[in-house]
Amino acid sequence: MELFNYYRSSASYRVRIALALKGLDYDYRAVHLRRNEQFQESYAAVSAARLVPLLRDGDAVVTQSLAIIEYLDETHPEPPLLPADAAGRARVRALALDIACEIHPLNNLRVLRFLVHDLKLADEDKNRWARHWIETGLETVERQLAARPAVFCHGETPTLADCVLVPQILNARRFDCRLDHVPQVMRVFETCMRLPAFADTHPERCPDAEP
Amino acid sequence: MELFNYYRSSASYRVRIALALKGLDYDYRAVHLRRNEQFQESYAAVSAARLVPLLRDGDAVVTQSLAIIEYLDETHPEPPLLPADAAGRARVRALALDIACEIHPLNNLRVLRFLVHDLKLADEDKNRWARHWIETGLETVERQLAARPAVFCHGETPTLADCVLVPQILNARRFDCRLDHVPQVMRVFETCMRLPAFADTHPERCPDAEP
Repeated sequence: MELFNYYRSSASYRVRIALALKGLDYDYRAVHLRRNEQFQESYAAVSAARLVPLLRDGDAVVTQSLAIIEYLDETHPEPPLLPADAAGRARVRALALDIACEIHPLNNLRVLRFLVHDLKLADEDKNRWARHWIETGLETVERQLAARPAVFCHGETPTLADCVLVPQILNARRFDCRLDHVPQVMRVFETCMRLPAFADTHPERCPDAEP
Repeated sequence: MELFNYYRSSASYRVRIALALKGLDYDYRAVHLRRNEQFQESYAAVSAARLVPLLRDGDAVVTQSLAIIEYLDETHPEPPLLPADAAGRARVRALALDIACEIHPLNNLRVLRFLVHDLKLADEDKNRWARHWIETGLETVERQLAARPAVFCHGETPTLADCVLVPQILNARRFDCRLDHVPQVMRVFETCMRLPAFADTHPERCPDAEP
């Protein structure tokens, strides 16, 4: 398997965590988003969306981090990254989507670039925008974790939701977000970071990491 | 089952389509987003995220449209809304996420409100923002459909991807987007709209629709 990804991309980190939790080997292919390598012809030929991450597994080319993780969970079921029951699976997917749809799309590189370069937003306003969606979005996650506290986001083992939560916290710190209002979220984050699957795939430990 | 939703919400429409494709009955609960009914205590007690749609099925409370549709597909497998093979499932999920993560979050009501009310963006800039993400995002979908043309987004029957595509086209029209650059997308849209499951659940045909 080959994973096309970028060390700083939150969506890439989600997939690295899932691969590590499953103990799967892969070839790391770096695509440098800040240098716009995703638009180079060689990559555009692989990726219709010109986005990372992208997983190539034999003939299958899978995009979108959540779809990649579900694919890995179906093709390599152990350890499972989704609970066995339909309601539990729905809760884990919803937690993942609360971050992947409601927070992260508003703060990724291309969106922030558009706000500043095209809409001429001041840096201060751009940061206020980013913090607003991260802080309020994490509150939603907090309410759900507090309603049913567990070791991880859901239950006693890491799931898809934890793969998505952890990168979002690194992103929140990059924007200097408040995090003291989400104690359950932060407790789960710290628990995850004690596991090698989360710690060893951290952006700073990637082959393409920059100082 | 009860579906809490809002006629104009694209994410709500996705779920209405899925319920109709499966032939499932449900109680329609209207939550008027423009009147901020999602923040009322009665709804906040049900929904941690104060968002629609939300499905209540016995003890299960499921949020996030994609998680709801996967839940319906697991609890009511016929007709399936995901292909049988892992690579096909991944492709359908990725197409759905190309819209649900890359387009829709940038153009929903609360995001546009924040741009105008908090960041003081002019209406013209707000519309340029919305059109940019819709038009470029649909191009990504177009490239994927063109690479493997089928009756629907994937294969001969409607899937999760079609449930997500159709509401996005209505949304694109609301913003006066270009659509002539995405002929495969529009062909699939027209095909879907000829089916009762898509036509009968159209926002304008909802109980809470306004003139």
